[in-house]
Amino acid sequence: MGAPVKVVMGQRLLRANAALAKENRARFGAAGTLVVNLISSPGAGKTTLLEETLARLGGRFRVGVIEGDICTTRDAERIAGKGTPVVQINTAGVCHLDASTVARAVEELGGGYDIIFIENVGNLVCPAEFDLGEDVKVALLSVVEGGDKPAKYPEVFRTASAAVITKVDLLPHTDFDLAACLKELHNINPGMAVFLTSARNGAGIAGWCEWLKRLVPVAGRQGR
Amino acid sequence: MGAPVKVVMGQRLLRANAALAKENRARFGAAGTLVVNLISSPGAGKTTLLEETLARLGGRFRVGVIEGDICTTRDAERIAGKGTPVVQINTAGVCHLDASTVARAVEELGGGYDIIFIENVGNLVCPAEFDLGEDVKVALLSVVEGGDKPAKYPEVFRTASAAVITKVDLLPHTDFDLAACLKELHNINPGMAVFLTSARNGAGIAGWCEWLKRLVPVAGRQGR
Repeated sequence: MGAPVKVVMGQRLLRANAALAKENRARFGAAGTLVVNLISSPGAGKTTLLEETLARLGGRFRVGVIEGDICTTRDAERIAGKGTPVVQINTAGVCHLDASTVARAVEELGGGYDIIFIENVGNLVCPAEFDLGEDVKVALLSVVEGGDKPAKYPEVFRTASAAVITKVDLLPHTDFDLAACLKELHNINPGMAVFLTSARNGAGIAGWCEWLKRLVPVAGRQGR
Repeated sequence: MGAPVKVVMGQRLLRANAALAKENRARFGAAGTLVVNLISSPGAGKTTLLEETLARLGGRFRVGVIEGDICTTRDAERIAGKGTPVVQINTAGVCHLDASTVARAVEELGGGYDIIFIENVGNLVCPAEFDLGEDVKVALLSVVEGGDKPAKYPEVFRTASAAVITKVDLLPHTDFDLAACLKELHNINPGMAVFLTSARNGAGIAGWCEWLKRLVPVAGRQGR
């Protein structure tokens, strides 16, 4: 019952979403805005990585943020506290963002950005299936979740341009097999950039920000 | 587009699922089997908690396991390695188990169990909405995910009979506010049992197993 019906409807939904994502992508391209879709499990550190990234890039680029959550505005408040323009999407139970809700959020955010970060709902599954019109998907994985996650949730890692492995300061306290995880990421997506980061001690954040800066359309880079 | 259509179809799906869950529940009740639905983010430690639980209860109760994953049979292999009967469900991209797939897995698992554990797909969102016919839902939350997760993903914590806070051995290395998290759990679901556990040093596992034992139907408890 459940699963087959869901899959059929899912495909109709995904086609409608793909058309809207294409419109979003054209709009972002015309505006010269880099759009980054951040995807991970709950608690992998998306908002914290964003805070660190805004601290480094916020002064040099015009950055906006769209926060996706099922409920609460906590993440948006954290970002707004840093002085960054932010729009919160509450999905009211829906487990992912889609291109339509992002289009509405972008309307509210307004124009003139070099980079827009979209923090998706905390979920390693469904967000991978919904194109938002972003330039790049970035998958976060905390070392505390275990190194088997790329193999168990391959779609998000297969379609992401980069993997950010977070909380590496906790590596000595876990049995996370970093070499095995890196090998698995490479098997799933050989071309992906991988960053080993810790918001706690700052490891890897500069490299991640350098990677982002190179993706900003030329107009934005030259402007500052 | 996306979200509203999904909600409408979701309700038809949920009604069909509820009817099948009722059938499952009647079957489990007639068989005198306690059925436990384990729900958490990816990497919170569901399989590890199961391994610890099987080590303590497996000799005294007839225990079976149903493993839900999008793909791979890794979790089932871990459980089978402990000599416990296990059936793996691969959902092929679907982000939760439903009552129909569980009914088929139970057929395969066979009868005669005191306890069946169902490890749901790693996802704090959708599994909360799909009744499987279980007696109790248990929500796991690792201290590394952050104490704000009950407020951000309330449905699973509202409907669970117990919360298992995992990886508490990592507390000194995180800024997890345990008191605030416990208060939030209490606000969302005042009647829920809460266990602070570490599979690494064994903390809290005995209390969790005692709680489970008291839930096993009388026939199963008297049998051993």
